Amino acid sequence: MSRLLLNCDMGESFGNWTMGLDAEVMPFVDCANIACGFHAGDPGIMRQTVALAVQHQVRIGAHPSYQDLAGFGRRSMACSNEEIRDLLHYQIGALDGICRVQRTHLSYVKPHGALYNDMMADHRKLRAVLEAVAAYDPPLPLMLMATADDTVARALGAEIGVPLWFEAFADRAYDADGHLVSRRLPGAVHHDPALIVEQALRLARGEPLTAIDGSAVTLHAQTLCVHGDNQSSLAAVRQIRQALDALKTP
Amino acid sequence: MSRLLLNCDMGESFGNWTMGLDAEVMPFVDCANIACGFHAGDPGIMRQTVALAVQHQVRIGAHPSYQDLAGFGRRSMACSNEEIRDLLHYQIGALDGICRVQRTHLSYVKPHGALYNDMMADHRKLRAVLEAVAAYDPPLPLMLMATADDTVARALGAEIGVPLWFEAFADRAYDADGHLVSRRLPGAVHHDPALIVEQALRLARGEPLTAIDGSAVTLHAQTLCVHGDNQSSLAAVRQIRQALDALKTP
Amino acid sequence: MSRLLLNCDMGESFGNWTMGLDAEVMPFVDCANIACGFHAGDPGIMRQTVALAVQHQVRIGAHPSYQDLAGFGRRSMACSNEEIRDLLHYQIGALDGICRVQRTHLSYVKPHGALYNDMMADHRKLRAVLEAVAAYDPPLPLMLMATADDTVARALGAEIGVPLWFEAFADRAYDADGHLVSRRLPGAVHHDPALIVEQALRLARGEPLTAIDGSAVTLHAQTLCVHGDNQSSLAAVRQIRQALDALKTP
Amino acid sequence: MSRLLLNCDMGESFGNWTMGLDAEVMPFVDCANIACGFHAGDPGIMRQTVALAVQHQVRIGAHPSYQDLAGFGRRSMACSNEEIRDLLHYQIGALDGICRVQRTHLSYVKPHGALYNDMMADHRKLRAVLEAVAAYDPPLPLMLMATADDTVARALGAEIGVPLWFEAFADRAYDADGHLVSRRLPGAVHHDPALIVEQALRLARGEPLTAIDGSAVTLHAQTLCVHGDNQSSLAAVRQIRQALDALKTP
Repeated sequence: MSRLLLNCDMGESFGNWTMGLDAEVMPFVDCANIACGFHAGDPGIMRQTVALAVQHQVRIGAHPSYQDLAGFGRRSMACSNEEIRDLLHYQIGALDGICRVQRTHLSYVKPHGALYNDMMADHRKLRAVLEAVAAYDPPLPLMLMATADDTVARALGAEIGVPLWFEAFADRAYDADGHLVSRRLPGAVHHDPALIVEQALRLARGEPLTAIDGSAVTLHAQTLCVHGDNQSSLAAVRQIRQALDALKTP
Repeated sequence: MSRLLLNCDMGESFGNWTMGLDAEVMPFVDCANIACGFHAGDPGIMRQTVALAVQHQVRIGAHPSYQDLAGFGRRSMACSNEEIRDLLHYQIGALDGICRVQRTHLSYVKPHGALYNDMMADHRKLRAVLEAVAAYDPPLPLMLMATADDTVARALGAEIGVPLWFEAFADRAYDADGHLVSRRLPGAVHHDPALIVEQALRLARGEPLTAIDGSAVTLHAQTLCVHGDNQSSLAAVRQIRQALDALKTP
Repeated sequence: MSRLLLNCDMGESFGNWTMGLDAEVMPFVDCANIACGFHAGDPGIMRQTVALAVQHQVRIGAHPSYQDLAGFGRRSMACSNEEIRDLLHYQIGALDGICRVQRTHLSYVKPHGALYNDMMADHRKLRAVLEAVAAYDPPLPLMLMATADDTVARALGAEIGVPLWFEAFADRAYDADGHLVSRRLPGAVHHDPALIVEQALRLARGEPLTAIDGSAVTLHAQTLCVHGDNQSSLAAVRQIRQALDALKTP
Repeated sequence: MSRLLLNCDMGESFGNWTMGLDAEVMPFVDCANIACGFHAGDPGIMRQTVALAVQHQVRIGAHPSYQDLAGFGRRSMACSNEEIRDLLHYQIGALDGICRVQRTHLSYVKPHGALYNDMMADHRKLRAVLEAVAAYDPPLPLMLMATADDTVARALGAEIGVPLWFEAFADRAYDADGHLVSRRLPGAVHHDPALIVEQALRLARGEPLTAIDGSAVTLHAQTLCVHGDNQSSLAAVRQIRQALDALKTP
């Protein structure tokens, strides 16, 4: 991947409950992280979301989670590495089956919520996720968080043989280590569209960002995580898409 | 398939709860119907059951169900045909993924419990199941109940392009139409081992059975459903296996 | 109850998913049918919805369902009468506990979705529900559908000792037997606010409605089911409330 | 409570899966910790277990858990204190409702598995549990682990107004601080019936136990946790019961 791809969580409705403007945001993204039933996404929602991705020629990623519908997969669970591997294979397989019915395929895996956070916070869990993804047939790339120092993640990915797709955020502030500033702190989330587009462009060009303490921080990211939650985030996605497309025009 | 295969429901434990003597019965059967998480079988149980099937070179079938853990998939649910298709693809895909991690594959689909009964009772539901199974990639055979008159099922299977594996029972009495006698009626279940083996042999040879009203009923079955619930049913499986193996010896 | 009470399904959010304008509609209704976790409503949502009802001095009803989150309790399940009794007691008890923490109490029970429909379609299931509600401590009234001929329901209620609160609809067309016209048929749902208010007033005054075939049909209802799904239904609730309040003014 | 009560986890079957010899162990215990549906125990199992407790005049305790059927409530979940309070009230209420149908009542609350461990390891979580139990109507005692130094727990119980029932184990080794020796270490579980009975008697008499390092450790316990998992643990319960009963005879 030479250009910065836009990825977005999708298919997070469930049964009678709707979440996200999937149909509106799908035309503007490159990668759809599709929920696999454990935190959101029942089989019918998964089928519809895969169809929408196919229609817009968007890459499909499995977006597996701890099994916690009531907590939307956002509560860490003390799962063993073996349990993590099993829940990944189950959910990846389920979405893979639904993809193949529609004669398409999975392109990557991006763990959701607490599982994603736990994987980023604990290298043993990252190893468990990487080994699970490598063991799947076909093996798939893993999407994970870009940080200033990604040495350990790159070493693990190389050792286990899993391509890594690092993602960054255009609408979030970073600290000097290239970690996201906690949402509980002031300034953590950018609301100014110009600032969001600027950060997206810097990430696309490989230029350093300005961290919250004013220092420069460089993130090597292949993809940018965007959001289709509401009209405001949808507008941001459209602007980012336009700015990135303009960048590519010679 | 020229000989009568033995199929058995497997992997019906869940979390901390154990059900069935899977490890003991696996060596004696040809086909393992493995639960896919909706009525039984969490991801870890599914992995272990697939491994056991691989070890004993047993064909693996997906055993999907209505989503009803508390009812063990035995309570009919008013699902639309679309919902049935989706829940089949999700569960088949999940088990397929777990199989592929172990470099094996699914050989067939056998719906479980109420979904199986509904499919046998309503040709529109049978069509929905057949279409779902045909749409899967790869398409798979469907295991279903042998009855005296299987004209409609065969016609649907041919139209939709799904091979049918009809199954019969050695330990259950049949009525004159080749339907199982309800368990609520006396004589519905055979307990005499000699009678069970005799019925298995008749089915294997294509000979008519004696229905509960004394009439002769012929069932064309490719497979016999056996049970690993307890030591008694396990003993029956062993005897059936031995009798069928002896039959094949020239 | 001498006046026509307004009841509304509430607390049908779940986890991260929001449904219904509960906070906006609560001030205008008399009775809140609160989901109990089996089709919607996790423990936190239940607590918040009870608090909202207490704040607006609205009667609280348990709104139990078949256990089917993915189907929102709208798919009939072949539960035994014993299973129906047990799932009612579990859900009523859960909401009762949450009420008592807030020093309030349940006033009635209204089954949800497919359970409600099954109870109205099958007197044996209605009996099972009535017996469950009567067995609870304290015994509670049952809210059920008003129809032109409610003889059997009234006889069962009297026999089992359960007060019945019949509900009618202002925004739905009735057939000559006082059954709701199926939503699949044209004219089933009223959209004209004037017509909706007119039907509410007729029900409040005990006057006959005009059935879809033009005949007159009289329903004896203690309560009117209203909806807080969206701004349009919310506007209807406000108008009905105003019209009913005006009716009471001497 | 002047004598040492025997408490046992009960009602941990679910749907078609059976766990524990509830009917056999119930006659020998004083307190039944009954699962409330989140880690085990569907509504029908809960009803049957309450009936069994009533039949044997055994006190009923709610045994609530994190919502994790697949993990049997044994995996810690990052729930907020508010979420813990809500899940406690939901589950306590559900069992309370089922009790009241049978004209009996709850006598105490004992959290299950990971929730119990988290409460013992983190005083903020213990406070959340105590406040939830105190807020319930009626307020109930909390059963928790006896340790050598129970100062903080007693202070919190007194502050919040919750009676504490400390429990100890006859079949587990303790360290010098009065904590259970981890099951992963040798000698953690006593298998010698004589040793188990001896430890039960020492706890009943208020005499110090011999910790795994040979030191003396005194636990102030009102109740002893016993197990009905299998015939071996059942035999131990019978022997403990007999020994304790003999102790009370003048």
